[in-house]
Amino acid sequence: MMKTEPLSGVFAPVLTPFKKDLAIDRKAYLQFCKWLRANEVGLAVFGTNSEANSLSVAERIELLGYLVSNGIPGSSLMPGTGACAIPDSVVLTQAALDAGSSAVLMVPPFFYKNVSEDGVFASHAEVIERIGNPRLKICLYNIPKLSGVAITLPLIKRLVARYPETVVGLKDSSGDTAYTSSVMQALPALRVFCASESLLLETMRNGGAGCISACANFNPAAIVRLHENWQGPDAEGLQKAVNPVRGIIESRPMIAALKAGTAAHGRYASFATVRPPLTGLNGEETKALLSALGEAGFAMNGLREHLAAAA
Amino acid sequence: MMKTEPLSGVFAPVLTPFKKDLAIDRKAYLQFCKWLRANEVGLAVFGTNSEANSLSVAERIELLGYLVSNGIPGSSLMPGTGACAIPDSVVLTQAALDAGSSAVLMVPPFFYKNVSEDGVFASHAEVIERIGNPRLKICLYNIPKLSGVAITLPLIKRLVARYPETVVGLKDSSGDTAYTSSVMQALPALRVFCASESLLLETMRNGGAGCISACANFNPAAIVRLHENWQGPDAEGLQKAVNPVRGIIESRPMIAALKAGTAAHGRYASFATVRPPLTGLNGEETKALLSALGEAGFAMNGLREHLAAAA
Repeated sequence: MMKTEPLSGVFAPVLTPFKKDLAIDRKAYLQFCKWLRANEVGLAVFGTNSEANSLSVAERIELLGYLVSNGIPGSSLMPGTGACAIPDSVVLTQAALDAGSSAVLMVPPFFYKNVSEDGVFASHAEVIERIGNPRLKICLYNIPKLSGVAITLPLIKRLVARYPETVVGLKDSSGDTAYTSSVMQALPALRVFCASESLLLETMRNGGAGCISACANFNPAAIVRLHENWQGPDAEGLQKAVNPVRGIIESRPMIAALKAGTAAHGRYASFATVRPPLTGLNGEETKALLSALGEAGFAMNGLREHLAAAA
Repeated sequence: MMKTEPLSGVFAPVLTPFKKDLAIDRKAYLQFCKWLRANEVGLAVFGTNSEANSLSVAERIELLGYLVSNGIPGSSLMPGTGACAIPDSVVLTQAALDAGSSAVLMVPPFFYKNVSEDGVFASHAEVIERIGNPRLKICLYNIPKLSGVAITLPLIKRLVARYPETVVGLKDSSGDTAYTSSVMQALPALRVFCASESLLLETMRNGGAGCISACANFNPAAIVRLHENWQGPDAEGLQKAVNPVRGIIESRPMIAALKAGTAAHGRYASFATVRPPLTGLNGEETKALLSALGEAGFAMNGLREHLAAAA
């Protein structure tokens, strides 16, 4: 089960369903969050795979309030609250705190490239200082391919040294396992999450806390089983069991594939819709995806029943 | 002089002064806009060099209203209104229209990388359709090094074919003059702006409309003189005259250098402040910059007098 004390477990960057006019389908979103919780997955709402940056700040804050006022416990939430503009990051982070979130996942400002370590440090420090609340727990977010900003080990050390009670974790989407290991060795108390369940066993063995993975939206039970039994006799088998679905998703545009698959398995069209600049899978691509998933024996147990409540 | 019918001239992505607490110094901003106008430069507020993405949407809309209600004519404005989230781009674009802007400069959504041509087309189309106003004039913005999204010739052709009255221009910050020439040859009616005054004469000779350049904040009179006289006998001399200052700025972190130089020449500290993740020049770097500018005989005539009104 997802554990928040200390921060650990399997988190999904929750997929965001959109109606045909691209408005957020919040009822379906809520039911999907409930399904994920039933599968013991934590809710990293507003992540990369949530199309968070395709939502306005106001949309994100409204959606967070909607979840919490409809029975989603704040303790299950790790909202993404990083933004290019510090004022945006501050209001998002404050909203996450107000919702009782166990932590926030903070992508650095991502428009300018080749910014200095001092600049990335200052952008995090400015948000932390403005919030000024010891309840704030931040998971740093290293995703240089999209953000253009590497969260280096020296930077993490500086942030942890300055804000030891606040900077408590790292999600590493770099896929650079040498880097991830170096961080875990240098800062054993830091809660380190890998971004792909294909690295989960290795990450746990090296002292990691879990994963925050796109596929936790899709294949949650099997990934949670691996996380819970990583020290068990069948850990390798559980790792092998989650890899084929990951492979099927990863070889396609991931967000579009996850959403098309979720829409089909949940019989709920809003999940197939993405906001531009992303594009969805076409009919043929969806058919091929579903066929590959079928051959892998893939199912999303209970999803249809949950989403029926949103219709 | 800056001409808006058809769209042409020299535009500055207006530098944004910040107080010590990083709040926008709007009085200084207004006076700086007036100084730029006195130098016959158009106001491409909220551009890359304005740190636009470090401002919240609300801050940008408030600032636009402040300019217009304090005597800046909408016709002099070409605000940047592109954003990662379509709802943000729509409200920014509507605010620019409401302010009477002659055009908007629209960076594509810049978080996701390797997005498809269809996706970039759809993101522009969605904003245009939601605005639904024939007064809207869009200058596309090709800045792949920062946005991660190339505005290719086939994409431009599709947008112009679908929205011929709306998609009227392109700012090209790629520095790829072969690309710029290919666009101008294929679409001679498109108003093409280069991003560096070092390319201004070449751009005008190839059928361009002008430039939208960071250094138009700094060295406006000389750049406008080149633009106005590009067909004159001393065009080459005028081009050579603007190059040294460009070289001095370009060899440094540009935004920090422009702001440090403007703060020093205008005797107004707010211009030296940047928002994280950018960092300003330190004392030594500023000294070296000013010394290089001094050797080049650089001045910002009348700036101090304009900014004195903001103090």
